[in-house]
Parts: sequence; C-alpha cells; structure tokens
Amino acid sequence: MTPAENAQLALLLEVSGTPKPGNVDRERDFPDLRFEHFLAGAVGAGPGLRAAEGGAPVGEAFEQAVAGMSQQEGGNTQFGALLLLVPLVRAAADGDLSPEGATRVVENTTVADAADFYRAFDHADVFVSDPPEDAEALDVRRGADAIPAVEERDLTLYDVLALGDDADDVAAEWTGGFERTFWAADRVADLAALDTPVTAKGAQVYLELLAREPDTLVAKRHGRKVAESVRVRAQEALEGGPEVIEAFADSLVEDGVNPGTTADIAAAGLFVALARGEVSV
Amino acid sequence: MTPAENAQLALLLEVSGTPKPGNVDRERDFPDLRFEHFLAGAVGAGPGLRAAEGGAPVGEAFEQAVAGMSQQEGGNTQFGALLLLVPLVRAAADGDLSPEGATRVVENTTVADAADFYRAFDHADVFVSDPPEDAEALDVRRGADAIPAVEERDLTLYDVLALGDDADDVAAEWTGGFERTFWAADRVADLAALDTPVTAKGAQVYLELLAREPDTLVAKRHGRKVAESVRVRAQEALEGGPEVIEAFADSLVEDGVNPGTTADIAAAGLFVALARGEVSV
Repeated sequence: MTPAENAQLALLLEVSGTPKPGNVDRERDFPDLRFEHFLAGAVGAGPGLRAAEGGAPVGEAFEQAVAGMSQQEGGNTQFGALLLLVPLVRAAADGDLSPEGATRVVENTTVADAADFYRAFDHADVFVSDPPEDAEALDVRRGADAIPAVEERDLTLYDVLALGDDADDVAAEWTGGFERTFWAADRVADLAALDTPVTAKGAQVYLELLAREPDTLVAKRHGRKVAESVRVRAQEALEGGPEVIEAFADSLVEDGVNPGTTADIAAAGLFVALARGEVSV
Repeated sequence: MTPAENAQLALLLEVSGTPKPGNVDRERDFPDLRFEHFLAGAVGAGPGLRAAEGGAPVGEAFEQAVAGMSQQEGGNTQFGALLLLVPLVRAAADGDLSPEGATRVVENTTVADAADFYRAFDHADVFVSDPPEDAEALDVRRGADAIPAVEERDLTLYDVLALGDDADDVAAEWTGGFERTFWAADRVADLAALDTPVTAKGAQVYLELLAREPDTLVAKRHGRKVAESVRVRAQEALEGGPEVIEAFADSLVEDGVNPGTTADIAAAGLFVALARGEVSV
C-alpha cells in the first residue's frame, strides 16, 4: 500500500479497535457521532492524504484532507489525527519515516501552510481553548479571518503549533519529534507477534498512551484534574484487565469524557507501524 | 463525495452493518477472515474505483480494484461487490445511474474487458463452481491462461458473465438490469427517514434480500436445498425480530454458511442510495 492508503487504513483501524474507553469504537456510537461518521471521514480524507504523498505543501494537503473529512454529518471526526498524518505521510513518501524525517517536514512549513491551516478550521467545528490574551488575533476559531495577523507576524505553521504545544498534545508531537507517535508505533510492533487483530493491538496501545499522559482534549474540556484522574484510571484499567477496562469505558461515556487527542496519536502510531511494515492486515 | 468515494464508503458501511447473518460484520470475525480485512480491501480497491470513475475500461478498472483489494491477508473480501460497483461507478460518472445506464455500461464491454476480468482471478482466490462440460476452456479458475480461448471465441465481458448468470447472482445483475441492486437501493431510501445508522439500514436490507432469493454462493458451496432453507429462515428471522435474527446469525456461523453474494448486492444497493443522495452519513 502507498503511504496515503496506509494513513486511510490507520484511521479505519483506530476507530475499529474496541474497547477504546471514552471514544467511538466498533461497538460504541454516541448519539450524534457514530462509527459510520468516522468511516466517511476516512474516505473523504483520501484526496488530501494523496496530495500530501504527492508532494503538495503540508498546509494545502491538510486543508484538503479536513475539507474531505467534513463531508459527513457527525462533525469533527479526525482533525487532530490528520494534523499528525499529513506530515507523516509526506515523510514516508520522502523515504524518511523517522522522528528526524517527520521533524524536517514540519520545520520546513511556511507562512502559506499556516494560512491553509487556519482555512481548515472553516471546514470543521474543532474544540479548542481560549488563546492567551496577547494572541487573540491568532485564535484558530477565527479561521481564515486570522490569516492577515498570521502573515503580518510571519508565522509558519510550525510556529503556530509551537504557540500551542503546552496545551495540545498534537501540537506537542509536531514540536517534539513525534515522540509519542513513534512510541505507539513501537508498541504496536511489539504486539505484532500476538495472534490478535490489528484493531485489538491499536486499542491496547490507545489505553497504554492514555495511562501515560493526561489527554489534552479532556484537559481543555474538563480541566487538568479530570484529565489526570482519567490517566490514573486508565493505568488501573490496564492492570485490572478486560472487566475493569469495560467498566472504565462505560463510565467515561456516561460522564461524556472523550480522550480524543490520545486516539489521534494512536492512529498516527498505527500508520507508522503499517508504513514501516512492522504490522500488517 | 465522488462516485468512487461513495463506492468505497458503501463497502465500509456494508461490512459494518450488524447483525448480518452468516457474514463478517462489525461484531463478528471469522478465524481467518476478519473485519479489518474488509477495511483494508475497501482502501486497496480505491485506485481501481477511481479508474472506473475516470473512464478506464471496465475490465481494466475491475482488475485494478481486485489487485488493490487483495493487498490484505484475509483472501477474497469484495470481489463480487467490486464486479457490481465498477460498472455502477462508471454509470454514475456518466451521469446515468439507472438500470438503463448501468446496462449500457456492461453491454458496451469488450473482449479486452473479458481478458482483464480473467486476469483479476489471478489476484484473488474466488470460490466458483465447475463450468459446464463444453466451457472448460473458459473456466475462470484458469485466470489469464483462459484468455486465448476467450479471444478465440470473441467473447466480451458481458458475454462471459451471461454464461454464468443462472448460477451466480452477481452475473445475473449484469444481464438483468441490476434489478436487485436497484431494489435494495430503493429499500435503503425507504428506510432513510428512520433515525438509525446507515449501517443498520444496510443490515436490514441485506436480510430482506436474503429472504427473497436463495444466495448463489451458498448454493454453489452447499447446494440449492441449503440455500433455499437459508432463504426461508431469513424470512422467519425478519418476522421474528432481533432475537430470532441473532440466533439465525449464530447458527449460520456455526454451520459455516456464508451468504456472500447477498452481501455484494447489499453493498451495491448502498452505493446507489448514497450516490443518488437518498441516504447520507
């Protein structure tokens, strides 16, 4: 498979893992966000992922992927995952799918990439926190309206994400060598020999990621304490086994707590493992 | 979405419907054929489906779709569905997704299309019956080796499928105006107003198709009596409701009875309903 196909497959495998506490999975729909919205999101993201593979600028490919992903009625399904996958697909197409290769791609982004990134927010309703007081002009919720401020300050897409890497773990991947993504890929590879579906390996690694770091989407929505408590409970679930994991999953759904950033990183890790041939379907 | 994207989405929605008695679905893996093989099959079929949309000859697009589908370890996942989807995608791209438009596409196939169809059998292990005694040279299991015989007899792909339309309901769709495909699409459209996932509508229509005609894959593998008995039991399951449907599903899995042709037609029906905008995700 091509890098773009592996990325599309990674999105599908990620959402098909179960149980994936707090997220839509193969056995859990939310009232307005269903498994099938993620299927349609993955299909719609195809042209943008192929553009990334073909050498289009990262911002342009990302905006195209998000516009395609948004052709379904569930809202934002895979914005964060695509923000990881687009540079990773590009690094794979360049023949260097490594922390260094991915970092080279993101460090080479331009002001035009940043402008396209802001345009992408016009396609999808993405949950973000308030920006710092001195950065209101750069609030991503302004979408394309923020582009003049971005251009005036001469910010590349890398610069824009660096502004948010404390509060958002997808941004932190961009500026931190995709550390958790490659850790997740290594864990998927560790599990490759087990006679389990790849979807099950993905669900396991999702839970391991969740047990290691508080999810930043949960922190934005519910505060840091809740995010840390979810992390601790994920660790307990890992130690407790299937029944504890199921109970944990049910309780997160009841409380409306959705560790979406962790799922984004799990998808990116699955992509890396697939693209490096460490796991196959 | 483009016709090719709707086709890819239809493949994903079809396999994600549950319960879909006798077939892999969102909640049922077989030992060597898992849900994720169908995900990878749908992703891999993408380039062939886009070729069909772009105007490539039907046989060439089909062979490309099957080659792409076969890049996973579960074997034949969607051969029959693709044989329906490729001409339907082409009809949609031509602006005439109707029984007449689809029939025009298949009637216009050539001897070269037939040759590519035989080549497709070299990519996937497809279950077929023995050919009639006078047609051994045309046995699809010979793959590309049968092409000289096909060319010598000047058979188009339509002609080849017409030879098998008694025993195979995918072939019967080609020569019969895609009657069951459009019936299934109309049924999906009838269910559109229900507040259920599209995957659930697909599963319902699959069961209705199964209750109306004996599945030809089951007939080839287990004989006509078994296929007719499965049809009757599907009808009883429809009348009996969710519990009877679940029991029927479990019993088919236990007996290794897999109504795959009916699933192919359900996928094609979902495509038509999506492409005509009668249902959306």
